[in-house]
Amino acid sequence: MKKHIYIYSPSSAVRDKPAFRRGVARLKALGYEVEIDEAALTAHQRFAGDDATRVAAIGRAAASKADIALISRGGYGLTRILDTLPYKAVTKAIERGTEFVGLSDFTAFQNALLAKTGAVTWAGPAVGEDFGAEAGPDDIMEACFDDLVGGQGEGTGWRLPARDGDAPTLRNVQDAVLWGGNLCVLTSLLGTPYFPAIDKGVLFLEDVGEHPYRIERMLDQLLHAGVLGRQRAVVLGQFTNFKKVPNDRGFGLKTVTDRLRTSLKKVPLLTGLPFGHVPTKVLLPVGAKVQMAAEGRDVFMMWGHRHAHDDAAHSAHGSHGRGAHHGH
Amino acid sequence: MKKHIYIYSPSSAVRDKPAFRRGVARLKALGYEVEIDEAALTAHQRFAGDDATRVAAIGRAAASKADIALISRGGYGLTRILDTLPYKAVTKAIERGTEFVGLSDFTAFQNALLAKTGAVTWAGPAVGEDFGAEAGPDDIMEACFDDLVGGQGEGTGWRLPARDGDAPTLRNVQDAVLWGGNLCVLTSLLGTPYFPAIDKGVLFLEDVGEHPYRIERMLDQLLHAGVLGRQRAVVLGQFTNFKKVPNDRGFGLKTVTDRLRTSLKKVPLLTGLPFGHVPTKVLLPVGAKVQMAAEGRDVFMMWGHRHAHDDAAHSAHGSHGRGAHHGH
Repeated sequence: MKKHIYIYSPSSAVRDKPAFRRGVARLKALGYEVEIDEAALTAHQRFAGDDATRVAAIGRAAASKADIALISRGGYGLTRILDTLPYKAVTKAIERGTEFVGLSDFTAFQNALLAKTGAVTWAGPAVGEDFGAEAGPDDIMEACFDDLVGGQGEGTGWRLPARDGDAPTLRNVQDAVLWGGNLCVLTSLLGTPYFPAIDKGVLFLEDVGEHPYRIERMLDQLLHAGVLGRQRAVVLGQFTNFKKVPNDRGFGLKTVTDRLRTSLKKVPLLTGLPFGHVPTKVLLPVGAKVQMAAEGRDVFMMWGHRHAHDDAAHSAHGSHGRGAHHGH
Repeated sequence: MKKHIYIYSPSSAVRDKPAFRRGVARLKALGYEVEIDEAALTAHQRFAGDDATRVAAIGRAAASKADIALISRGGYGLTRILDTLPYKAVTKAIERGTEFVGLSDFTAFQNALLAKTGAVTWAGPAVGEDFGAEAGPDDIMEACFDDLVGGQGEGTGWRLPARDGDAPTLRNVQDAVLWGGNLCVLTSLLGTPYFPAIDKGVLFLEDVGEHPYRIERMLDQLLHAGVLGRQRAVVLGQFTNFKKVPNDRGFGLKTVTDRLRTSLKKVPLLTGLPFGHVPTKVLLPVGAKVQMAAEGRDVFMMWGHRHAHDDAAHSAHGSHGRGAHHGH
């Protein structure tokens, strides 16, 4: 039986309709049954419909009984409606087997849900930018997505950038809750009831279009709030598409990560996670317990079989984890 | 005796040296004795010297015994050094009569100081952009600055924009702590020990170069954190220099303020405060108790004589408050 994918729009309006159509066509070509929410292409101002429309769309995604509920795109819109999201309906849908997948603005949904009910969602692709990419979808992204749909994914792995070779050795991490996503969106939840209270977790972060000084200011906020120091590891994904300015005079991402590593002291700061606003992205279970280990510059993050997040650790060596060592 | 102004650089490096020199010359022409910190024109990457240099500069400003300690410019740099600022020395300097004046990135200093010691500082001009403005300094800004130096300022006033004529009537506000500043910088303190815990205060906010959707996301964060609902009034200054995009389709600042007014319910949201990244800015005592009242569209905010912040309310009618009704 074909796997069922439900596409809906919880954030910004879909403007690039050719990319959306390419993405839908690609998902069908991959053998999935694709259902498109009635409001997926609605527009109100910047948004994919007004607030009530988008809340209702999330409710329909939860009621769809699909295998995967996939966002059309990110953008902006979820922080506006955090007070009215159908957290219980989404959590029940997840318990019944629907996996919610998305990124960027979706970080607000994922972490608010984690804070409210503890339900697990997936940081992963969107229809337009990923499956509908003009250059064609990324192989690793599609393979990771297929693993999720088929219940096969057990983890991921990547190689630390050589310039971070002096990172503190990652001690074995067991049963740590993986959480995070887009740095700016996650930070915009800090101090609110929608920010998860995760101790001894693994926090992953990415962002797009944010200058390193703003990235640093957000990381400092998480640091000063005590959030970073409480984690077992902080993992940075891809920070892309920002414009350096002449005033930087050598201040850049490397300055930020070097300084943060000093501030974090005993908490390992790992970089190079293949996730963010880039084609090659793995899927990551937000709210699931993960194990982490490193062998030299190779990092492994394992979460065991789907719907078995609380299982004992799988050996990194024996796993079927999908990695991106050769991705980019 | 000439009043003594100490100029120092706690944030970004001074790149526009002609503007800085024009500002210094203007302050001298106004009859002030101007002392320039030894590191005022230092540069390290984006910053006016490395972190230790800027912390030391703030210490020298506190030790200067000047009437006014004035920032050369804003930019970025203070959130990096909040852990090491000489809060006690600055507070003692303020008790001795030195007034600290600045804006933008300086918001972090002002609100962290308020959170730590309760000391009052002034939201106001910077040397380069204000006194050194190529078109010449703004009259109202200079008059407000002169009021502060001379201990004459008792308050300010402005006219609400006509489009906000349906704003909820401002009830008389007594003994409310005025606080705030740059929205982005203030929000970057939320959840940290540097965010003031002010109940029943008057929160003022401004920003530059932030798209309305980002302004809304920050305001929503303050709202969801319970900060806005706890205030007696929220006052918006000038939000300037952002680029609208075709995707906005009617979403703009007006959308943001209309929606926020609905969310705030009983807390009045007042707009049009002449403060922000604009030439015409009044000076505002961050951390002082203020009284507020309105007559039609005219709003008055009174703080009484300098060093008498806890005095009983002055009548708005009898005051010498410097307003900007005709400013812009």
